[in-house]
Amino acid sequence: MTRRRLRDLGLATGRLPPGPLNAITDVAGVRVGYSTVARDTPHVVRTGVTAIWPRGPEIWEDYVFAGTHSFNGNGEMTGLPWIAEQGYIGAPIGITNTYQVGLVRDAICRLAVRDGASQDFHLPVVAETYDGWLSDIQSFSLTQADAFAAFDGAVGGQPIAEGNVGGGTGMIAHEFKGGTGTASRVVAIDGAGYTVGALVQANYGARELFRVAGVPVGQLIGTDIVPSHDPRPREAGSIIVILATDAPLIPIQCQRLARRATTGMAWVGGIGANGSGDIFLAFSTANHVRQKDRISDLRMLAAASMTDLFLAAAEATEEAILNALCMAETMTGRDGKTAHALPLDRLVEAMRARGAAA
Amino acid sequence: MTRRRLRDLGLATGRLPPGPLNAITDVAGVRVGYSTVARDTPHVVRTGVTAIWPRGPEIWEDYVFAGTHSFNGNGEMTGLPWIAEQGYIGAPIGITNTYQVGLVRDAICRLAVRDGASQDFHLPVVAETYDGWLSDIQSFSLTQADAFAAFDGAVGGQPIAEGNVGGGTGMIAHEFKGGTGTASRVVAIDGAGYTVGALVQANYGARELFRVAGVPVGQLIGTDIVPSHDPRPREAGSIIVILATDAPLIPIQCQRLARRATTGMAWVGGIGANGSGDIFLAFSTANHVRQKDRISDLRMLAAASMTDLFLAAAEATEEAILNALCMAETMTGRDGKTAHALPLDRLVEAMRARGAAA
Amino acid sequence: MTRRRLRDLGLATGRLPPGPLNAITDVAGVRVGYSTVARDTPHVVRTGVTAIWPRGPEIWEDYVFAGTHSFNGNGEMTGLPWIAEQGYIGAPIGITNTYQVGLVRDAICRLAVRDGASQDFHLPVVAETYDGWLSDIQSFSLTQADAFAAFDGAVGGQPIAEGNVGGGTGMIAHEFKGGTGTASRVVAIDGAGYTVGALVQANYGARELFRVAGVPVGQLIGTDIVPSHDPRPREAGSIIVILATDAPLIPIQCQRLARRATTGMAWVGGIGANGSGDIFLAFSTANHVRQKDRISDLRMLAAASMTDLFLAAAEATEEAILNALCMAETMTGRDGKTAHALPLDRLVEAMRARGAAA
Amino acid sequence: MTRRRLRDLGLATGRLPPGPLNAITDVAGVRVGYSTVARDTPHVVRTGVTAIWPRGPEIWEDYVFAGTHSFNGNGEMTGLPWIAEQGYIGAPIGITNTYQVGLVRDAICRLAVRDGASQDFHLPVVAETYDGWLSDIQSFSLTQADAFAAFDGAVGGQPIAEGNVGGGTGMIAHEFKGGTGTASRVVAIDGAGYTVGALVQANYGARELFRVAGVPVGQLIGTDIVPSHDPRPREAGSIIVILATDAPLIPIQCQRLARRATTGMAWVGGIGANGSGDIFLAFSTANHVRQKDRISDLRMLAAASMTDLFLAAAEATEEAILNALCMAETMTGRDGKTAHALPLDRLVEAMRARGAAA
Repeated sequence: MTRRRLRDLGLATGRLPPGPLNAITDVAGVRVGYSTVARDTPHVVRTGVTAIWPRGPEIWEDYVFAGTHSFNGNGEMTGLPWIAEQGYIGAPIGITNTYQVGLVRDAICRLAVRDGASQDFHLPVVAETYDGWLSDIQSFSLTQADAFAAFDGAVGGQPIAEGNVGGGTGMIAHEFKGGTGTASRVVAIDGAGYTVGALVQANYGARELFRVAGVPVGQLIGTDIVPSHDPRPREAGSIIVILATDAPLIPIQCQRLARRATTGMAWVGGIGANGSGDIFLAFSTANHVRQKDRISDLRMLAAASMTDLFLAAAEATEEAILNALCMAETMTGRDGKTAHALPLDRLVEAMRARGAAA
Repeated sequence: MTRRRLRDLGLATGRLPPGPLNAITDVAGVRVGYSTVARDTPHVVRTGVTAIWPRGPEIWEDYVFAGTHSFNGNGEMTGLPWIAEQGYIGAPIGITNTYQVGLVRDAICRLAVRDGASQDFHLPVVAETYDGWLSDIQSFSLTQADAFAAFDGAVGGQPIAEGNVGGGTGMIAHEFKGGTGTASRVVAIDGAGYTVGALVQANYGARELFRVAGVPVGQLIGTDIVPSHDPRPREAGSIIVILATDAPLIPIQCQRLARRATTGMAWVGGIGANGSGDIFLAFSTANHVRQKDRISDLRMLAAASMTDLFLAAAEATEEAILNALCMAETMTGRDGKTAHALPLDRLVEAMRARGAAA
Repeated sequence: MTRRRLRDLGLATGRLPPGPLNAITDVAGVRVGYSTVARDTPHVVRTGVTAIWPRGPEIWEDYVFAGTHSFNGNGEMTGLPWIAEQGYIGAPIGITNTYQVGLVRDAICRLAVRDGASQDFHLPVVAETYDGWLSDIQSFSLTQADAFAAFDGAVGGQPIAEGNVGGGTGMIAHEFKGGTGTASRVVAIDGAGYTVGALVQANYGARELFRVAGVPVGQLIGTDIVPSHDPRPREAGSIIVILATDAPLIPIQCQRLARRATTGMAWVGGIGANGSGDIFLAFSTANHVRQKDRISDLRMLAAASMTDLFLAAAEATEEAILNALCMAETMTGRDGKTAHALPLDRLVEAMRARGAAA
Repeated sequence: MTRRRLRDLGLATGRLPPGPLNAITDVAGVRVGYSTVARDTPHVVRTGVTAIWPRGPEIWEDYVFAGTHSFNGNGEMTGLPWIAEQGYIGAPIGITNTYQVGLVRDAICRLAVRDGASQDFHLPVVAETYDGWLSDIQSFSLTQADAFAAFDGAVGGQPIAEGNVGGGTGMIAHEFKGGTGTASRVVAIDGAGYTVGALVQANYGARELFRVAGVPVGQLIGTDIVPSHDPRPREAGSIIVILATDAPLIPIQCQRLARRATTGMAWVGGIGANGSGDIFLAFSTANHVRQKDRISDLRMLAAASMTDLFLAAAEATEEAILNALCMAETMTGRDGKTAHALPLDRLVEAMRARGAAA
């Protein structure tokens, strides 16, 4: 069966409707780009860079509020002290592999210089998950040009690639091939419609805990399709979740939203295993913190309305992970190691067996 | 059907085995007591106090390491700065209603004085959930004697009551009658057996998100049995989770464990709604921080072994919530309001319909 | 010499000008009240309650943004999870002794009920410092009426009492008699004037580290005037700092401001000794989070302007501590123990000797 | 006057005695190395890398406990989620300039690979301060070789260079030339001697707030010696403080220690200005968390003994900053900009004038 997104399999999770693209790019202004580096010489590498622009290039001067949560911190996300202090970000965000977070982080500084950002200093956000099972991570193969390509190639307002792309190229999740995934939800609050979009780099999880809409698919799907070599990746991975919304939030509310990625991940079977870097970031595009302003005028959603956004964030995260798994193709990497794609036919079958699909 | 614990219905959640009591009292030394205050005059009150002793009275001098997590902080847990600073607790823990946290907190200071604790000051941990839908919370009906009764009546090494008892007396969860619940898990690590026990005061959650072992019971169980009066409680509640373990953890590891209550709650359908105070505390009885010691000798479990404990914490929390729901009886409180017990026959039926029970 | 505030001694600290009252009540709308309980029968008690209203009674519906910092958490401040989650407070704040935090906390719930606050639940902020050296803290002598008196008697826009009043009655600081103190600073930012006011309950610190405007007064002032009995209080205490401002801050900015109490305390000689509960709260009255609003319109000061507020917060904290010390009278309490007032003549002399006063 | 350390000027701060080297290298096993990159072609750069090894190369397998504090987060320190989660570090630490944190961070991963570290992944700690006033930071001139040189050249048990070296090369503090500084303190606790060492990269602060041992030197020292060009650096900087101790601490205690760098910085006049990245890390070499161990045996100092360590940390930080200022030479950098060294004669004179020096 060709790879398809979860909903294109006739399956669904959650109770809220997705946006038109069912992607983080449903949030107006958000752009996503990838640089995928998959080659066999001089090193077998299966890696890349994912770029997320909260706004277009105006982000360098017109910051978005943001907040983070580390559910299990065996991973890296740079820029955390600044977000914790100021509550905003003023640069695009990167996601890549564990050993080259620094390269991508500095590349964003270079991008700011190249593009004439007026700010004097930058403290960019770059996160990572580990792709060393499939990719020769010790070759440090990514270059600044790879990073630039991801940031420069980012687009908004359209569907984005999933699976083995960008930073998600070499990922493994719930012992199947993982990668990049996205989804969105729309909620109506007091007559206004707000979108929450999620983009994940999914590289975590045990097979036995894998669930789809509550169905223990990981237990039902058979034990014959497993990563080809021992030690098989199990919990060495991580998951990065980026949540975007156009609801008018202040930083402390973004922190709250970020925390709900935990819920969505739990629904798929993520428990934040010891070796996992489960780090989440949420930003809101609704407010504008222009660096030239001495006073910013802001709007803030009432606390009582947050519950709908929380559910949206949990559901978008859940489905983004499932989309990553559904879209990722089987991949063979270094030393002939193979991570197999989630078998979609068996997935559908398991869902039907439990009355969770037609 | 008489109220029964989840496993006594032939149902189960999780993959790890419970301890002999399937209760927090499986952790040696932990004692639990209740003071249940349910009367109709002079005020209709449905409230109480739950007492948890991490050790026996030696806790006043021989502290246990502890850590906390606030997944959604619309609630109270006193004593947080001290735990964050020192990483331990040196007093029993209380759980009660929102308006009398203070009473119970000061009562623990009085208890220390009464019992001749040698420490000069105490910063006790008392948490709460709101029982104002069923109980006349504005009557401030609990007394110091009620608090003392809970602490003095605590017992260990035996089954403990669940449902409408102690601080959990007037609770509502997933729109059914909620309350106090407990469960435990045993894990084997490097030849040693460790227990993780959970005690919850469950007062949170929407019906539509309620799941048992992944089955969307809240959606399958019918819409006819709902709280009797509007506005029906939905997300105004909270959940307090106390996790105990005999694994040798240091404070930072207790924090990690506490965070996993989030996972267990998510599995049942908790998303940390805006109005919810979802605050978790984990303690470990294995190390002894005796106040007379100038240097404490400690043991610390390797990080790599934490994953099993995390799963145990998530599963124990999940099942403790379900036990609270399964054991709580229908209750009528102030203004004739009734919260109905989870119908156990329908629960079993729903589970069977989805192939999740024999 | 009769007790006088620092500036009335011809001394000064800091570089920014104080407000007209040099008090937290320079921030429009802020009200402060005290209940001072000092009697010798049936128990020798030297204690009380300090009440701070961020606004008048409209606070029950019109919340102020707030943020906290625990520099050393051997103390209690209730309400922390809610402030961390929502970033605001919607009730008056109390400060009292260590063993009756709960009483005052519940009293605020009662106050809300009495005054018909429309909100369903309250998670009040009450902090404490330990007065057990001078006061029979084990007598639990404060009553709900004492708490009500402090809240009901609060006034704004005028000077407020300092020294041995309210929660500060039985305090000891830097081995002299401590207590309640206040101060303020005014800063001009982009043509607007903003006020930062501090109120402290000072009960911490070693003599040898005590400094006034950099002068090591604690070392210069002689060793003959010390607390009368052993063990002399030294670091068993704590300091609570409440900062108020009318600058338009959001919660994350209030957190930043709260952190600067650390700086002011350090300038006086506070290092956050192990036994100290050095917990700080800052709130801003400029924004209004009305509970009936679905969207709140807010204003936010640019980050670049925060530095002036930070200095204001540090200076106001520093001078508030010094005012507490300068205004507190010598007090004899339980078991005949005496804490001596800071000798003002020697203070002035020490400052002159080091060229720090005319 | 040739540059001299503070004590070599006959001046002193603090009350505790320094270790034999009055340097972070007084803590046994700690090694420090520098790579200083100061050249005029092809770009005018004044930058570098500072390397701190908590232990020798055995750090890759034998971790040290650590904790951090961000007093003002306008800066970067990578590795924070991992330290917060696990409480230890297992790699050397780097400090460099703002735009090349990533380079140094990835270089540590490369170092681990080169040296055959057995761990699969690394989440190194690298911090930064901004040297763009004197150095062409936009040239991104540091190379991986520069980073390796710092780590490979590190030495322990001997004096280390201060002032314009390593990551501190291009720094400015209190409007004088800043840079790298170090100091230490020794405390006796229960018959055991413990050392606390500090290493700072000082690049923060306003002249007017600069104090030495309480004396307002910044105000007394004259206004004629200032940075040569406008806009003069004032608060755009930052300070990184690394604290090392051989006292047996657990992670939560390391966090406490890290927080005390705030106090030392405050004593010199640092208020955590908005643009400052004031981020602190403390580690303890006493416990060994060997990655092969399934259970680690630990020792923990009693909480009551922490106060002495707190004072030591504050004093060591204070003096390390002053040593940076006293040792840094006047430097001319890009565009002919000059940052002048603190005039030592005037410093001594000011101290004498206020009776703080002989």
